[in-house]
Amino acid sequence: MGSRVLVIGGDAAGMTAASALRRRLPAEHEVVVLERTQRTSYSACGIPYWVSGEVESVDDLVARSPEEHRANGIDLRTGAEAAAIDVEARSVTYRDADDEQTLDYDRLVIATGAEPRRPDLPGIDAEGIYGIQTLADGEAVIAALGERPRHVVVVGSGYVGLEMAEAMTQRGIDTTVIERGETPLSLLEPSLGTKVADAMRDLGITLRTGTAVDGFVEEDGRVAGVRAGGETYPADLVVLGLGVVARTRLAQDAGLPTGAKGGIVVDDTQRVEGADGVWAAGDCVVTRDRITGDLLHVPLGTHANKQGLVMADAIAADLLGEAPRLRFPGIVRTAITKFCSLEISRTGLGEQQARDAGFDPVVATIDTTTTAGYFPDAGTMTVLMVADRATRRLLGVQVVGERNAGLRIDTGAVAITAEMTVDDVVMLDLAYAPPFASVWSPLQVAAREAVKRLS
Amino acid sequence: MGSRVLVIGGDAAGMTAASALRRRLPAEHEVVVLERTQRTSYSACGIPYWVSGEVESVDDLVARSPEEHRANGIDLRTGAEAAAIDVEARSVTYRDADDEQTLDYDRLVIATGAEPRRPDLPGIDAEGIYGIQTLADGEAVIAALGERPRHVVVVGSGYVGLEMAEAMTQRGIDTTVIERGETPLSLLEPSLGTKVADAMRDLGITLRTGTAVDGFVEEDGRVAGVRAGGETYPADLVVLGLGVVARTRLAQDAGLPTGAKGGIVVDDTQRVEGADGVWAAGDCVVTRDRITGDLLHVPLGTHANKQGLVMADAIAADLLGEAPRLRFPGIVRTAITKFCSLEISRTGLGEQQARDAGFDPVVATIDTTTTAGYFPDAGTMTVLMVADRATRRLLGVQVVGERNAGLRIDTGAVAITAEMTVDDVVMLDLAYAPPFASVWSPLQVAAREAVKRLS
Repeated sequence: MGSRVLVIGGDAAGMTAASALRRRLPAEHEVVVLERTQRTSYSACGIPYWVSGEVESVDDLVARSPEEHRANGIDLRTGAEAAAIDVEARSVTYRDADDEQTLDYDRLVIATGAEPRRPDLPGIDAEGIYGIQTLADGEAVIAALGERPRHVVVVGSGYVGLEMAEAMTQRGIDTTVIERGETPLSLLEPSLGTKVADAMRDLGITLRTGTAVDGFVEEDGRVAGVRAGGETYPADLVVLGLGVVARTRLAQDAGLPTGAKGGIVVDDTQRVEGADGVWAAGDCVVTRDRITGDLLHVPLGTHANKQGLVMADAIAADLLGEAPRLRFPGIVRTAITKFCSLEISRTGLGEQQARDAGFDPVVATIDTTTTAGYFPDAGTMTVLMVADRATRRLLGVQVVGERNAGLRIDTGAVAITAEMTVDDVVMLDLAYAPPFASVWSPLQVAAREAVKRLS
Repeated sequence: MGSRVLVIGGDAAGMTAASALRRRLPAEHEVVVLERTQRTSYSACGIPYWVSGEVESVDDLVARSPEEHRANGIDLRTGAEAAAIDVEARSVTYRDADDEQTLDYDRLVIATGAEPRRPDLPGIDAEGIYGIQTLADGEAVIAALGERPRHVVVVGSGYVGLEMAEAMTQRGIDTTVIERGETPLSLLEPSLGTKVADAMRDLGITLRTGTAVDGFVEEDGRVAGVRAGGETYPADLVVLGLGVVARTRLAQDAGLPTGAKGGIVVDDTQRVEGADGVWAAGDCVVTRDRITGDLLHVPLGTHANKQGLVMADAIAADLLGEAPRLRFPGIVRTAITKFCSLEISRTGLGEQQARDAGFDPVVATIDTTTTAGYFPDAGTMTVLMVADRATRRLLGVQVVGERNAGLRIDTGAVAITAEMTVDDVVMLDLAYAPPFASVWSPLQVAAREAVKRLS
């Protein structure tokens, strides 16, 4: 007789797992998915590009529709919001349009994602204040744009804040970004964050750094302004770019272990620690840093997809009495974004993160070009590299630069994963031709500078 | 009392070593360089871009002039062509404008570079047939362009052949490329080479593959055509793109050991095997493949620069009684080029190379996009991956694609160097954001396909 795998959440991690399970498990096993919205498998990361108009339709952001999933044999229930998990009884209670049901499971997958942080400030519940996480959020913002807002305030300048600020400016709307830190994009070292700040101001964005938001001005139930640092900034529309927290109230109520930002704690097959028959993956879990061993909450679609595959493999192996073949090895904090023509990326540890992890960091920063310097259209780029003094190990790389700069971070990510020293990096056989690099690739120019600083 | 380090050859490897030695050695040591031309430290790889007009002036290709080197304390003798090395007597005989001199040395550096292969065919000595290696070659071609050639034939379609064919077409000259193999760029697998062939034809180049050159038509001492495969192609100008061989007649006459394409055999500090006090680096040496251990001749400025540094470190250590700090670890055959908007790159082993090295290769090829697929301007790219069946080790990656495709090869180069499996590659933390990649990075899409083919 078949088992039932019940998946809560129909986006990246949940649907990757459901699809992989459906392919791998014999037909007598059921794969049921509960999704609270009407949509599945969408790219939340694409929302800013939909808001900017670069991506035309919301359908473009949907990798696979509910109908396609159902055609593949998945029992997908949309508009079905899970209300409680009973891990002892192995059942989940959920509500759809007008009903409440309880469904038993043999194996449970929690893939409930994350939600934007909404600071507990006066006026936060006024209409017109949007976080950006679901397609519904994107739809709400686009609908609000139809009312011709004149002033947008973006609170916070992480990736989403930055991308939304660019999108709003491209829409011709006066845009202010309010950031608590001294530079935007706190995942970048301040020396590189300054370059991003310059690019924001060059685009005409009003950037207020070192400024905390005190509250929101409300008029007739709608937001009319943002109070921050003793001033009031007019705003018809507010975008919250303060990051996200794991959506794990259900899991917490069920007594499952959680860590940073509410993320569920799992092992390297995504099995929830200390719970029987329960797995979790994606934006609702914490993930191990391969360098420090720390458990971090890093909500990114690329991790969710990988974890979904690992989880499906482990569940299938469990049900079929086999050994799991996949392990999720953790992350090295790689991230990338674009602001206008500026490509911005990072991997590994920043200086303070390295110090916090017990390393003795040495930092090298270099300016170079994205092609051989003699090309008339050579772009500029800056590479910052962090290495450990004692072991000479490469710990982190950050890049800000023009065309062809950003993706070079992957080279750093692999070198960090392989525990290479900066000396190893200097001698790597990286691609060289004048349209792509100088005879020393930008990461190697930085590694040579790090070697110099280490001696 | 100081020693004399004598360097033969004033381009990448020689001048990198001379400069590093000058910085590291106390002033009583002499650093003397013999350079047969009037120029130093130039980018031979940049010549096609100078011919195309993208790079304006020959001076742009010179990283450091003779005057600058002399100002740094190097005894640089230009127009000085070494004629013989006596490794027993530790002396070198050289000729300048009107004199022949013999100079003793304590340590010798051979950095004589490479020269274009000139096939021994009827008519090869006609005027108007150019290899592309030195700035003088570039100058000669540019001078020939002044005579308004109507038809150019490029013989061979390696990197230089391809780049020169593009440059000539950009100049508005009717261009034919004759290639002995079935597809251009023999360093690519034929399935990817076909894409390059299509791009060449799209640009209007006449491409004849599977065609060997039989000889050159000469009229009044000048080339007038190329005979190949039973036809005669009119040509006012012929470019040889048949690769290069090491320029090591001097070294061979001195009894030094040579290997593939005449490259001098050195150890991992660039010391010449079996010779006392002699080092060599750059396009005149063979280099160890990190995967197979084979000694290969891979003439590239990036290797020359690294080897120059390693060599200088070893010579300084030898003179100062210290232990060398650097080792040249070998290469993984990484290479990149561009043809119009097509970026082309490769690293590691192709299928046949893997088989020749004793592996049991599995090949996976995938088509994907250079951004999230839903971006309206998503470029296309193809990734080919070679893995070993028994160990699942990543052996090779090849990429042909549009904007942002080519440099992804570096990720493969580092993963190969770190001896990762394709399973490891699938789980790497690579940069993800919609303007740069789909949620699975192109190399990971290929690695997943390789995993599928391995099971």
